[in-house]
Amino acid sequence: MNAIDEITDSFSRLPGIGKKSAGRIAAFLLKADPAFMQRFANQIASLQERIHPCSICGAWTEADPCPICQDAGRDRTTICVVEQPQDVTIIDSCHDYKGLFHVLGGVIAPLEGVSPDSLRIKELLERVEKEQIQEVILAMNPNVEGDTTALYIQSLLKSNPCKVTRLASGLPVGGDLEYIDRLTLARSFMGRSGF
Amino acid sequence: MNAIDEITDSFSRLPGIGKKSAGRIAAFLLKADPAFMQRFANQIASLQERIHPCSICGAWTEADPCPICQDAGRDRTTICVVEQPQDVTIIDSCHDYKGLFHVLGGVIAPLEGVSPDSLRIKELLERVEKEQIQEVILAMNPNVEGDTTALYIQSLLKSNPCKVTRLASGLPVGGDLEYIDRLTLARSFMGRSGF
Repeated sequence: MNAIDEITDSFSRLPGIGKKSAGRIAAFLLKADPAFMQRFANQIASLQERIHPCSICGAWTEADPCPICQDAGRDRTTICVVEQPQDVTIIDSCHDYKGLFHVLGGVIAPLEGVSPDSLRIKELLERVEKEQIQEVILAMNPNVEGDTTALYIQSLLKSNPCKVTRLASGLPVGGDLEYIDRLTLARSFMGRSGF
Repeated sequence: MNAIDEITDSFSRLPGIGKKSAGRIAAFLLKADPAFMQRFANQIASLQERIHPCSICGAWTEADPCPICQDAGRDRTTICVVEQPQDVTIIDSCHDYKGLFHVLGGVIAPLEGVSPDSLRIKELLERVEKEQIQEVILAMNPNVEGDTTALYIQSLLKSNPCKVTRLASGLPVGGDLEYIDRLTLARSFMGRSGF
């Protein structure tokens, strides 16, 4: 296997890249700016070392706590609960939501062996208590596991005086936060409803 | 810009990868096997240094001459002329062609400033002469520039006794008449064959 075959193979392991696309990328890289190539290689080599989960919200960050948790300008009475760290980036880049975040690290999925205990639910309850949160927005993906997890968390928060809401419809059922357009996401924030 | 934004930006510069796909790849890489990450980074860092054009045919190779030019088992009387180095890989992986290759490095495109002199046409004529080639297969892409370049090379080889052929143009196998453009259909009629 020569260098081109090796790099093509590596690219074809990435999500959404097939063998032909990987070959095209390899051809592109052969002619790319050498400075870009070194920067790109360093970014890949150092990525996992530079990025850690925030000790408060669980989002990916270089600093700890993350810039969002440290930002005094945000609404510190609202927490938006998401499944994955990348959901924080997606929601935050829309600028429709100005509160805090909490990453669960997944959703309840008994068939895949994900129980409530393996998610960061306990940490969420502690934060809601300690940080005097007034609203918890459940922003799990609108599918069976997401809905189940949202219902579960809502039941745990019943004794707490805070408001618990779920992102409104507007999100297509069975879809994924990662593929939602801005407007749909903005509407789902505006139209969020209580249980 | 943190490490995730940086790597997302780099991936989104690659052909066929948009911003959202780049974000998904970054998320994937954060959880990928660290050994894979280091190997991947090294492959990118060393790619341009390891790969060079073959001094004979112009294909990408680590050894010089390339494995195809060195292979005594191939039909050394036939040369397939292609536009780009990656075309060699594509044709060779089909195992339908067992001869040699010659990479032009592009096609004649006056509007983009590509004249015949900037392509490896002189080298092709020398090889046809010296290596006693019996057939030259012109495998440029079937578009205006490719056809022009093929016609030009064919005219230069007129004085040589070798056979000059062009890849058949017509309906792609598995295609549908409904979706074929007029020109392709016209060519498939011109090039029709008996049973």
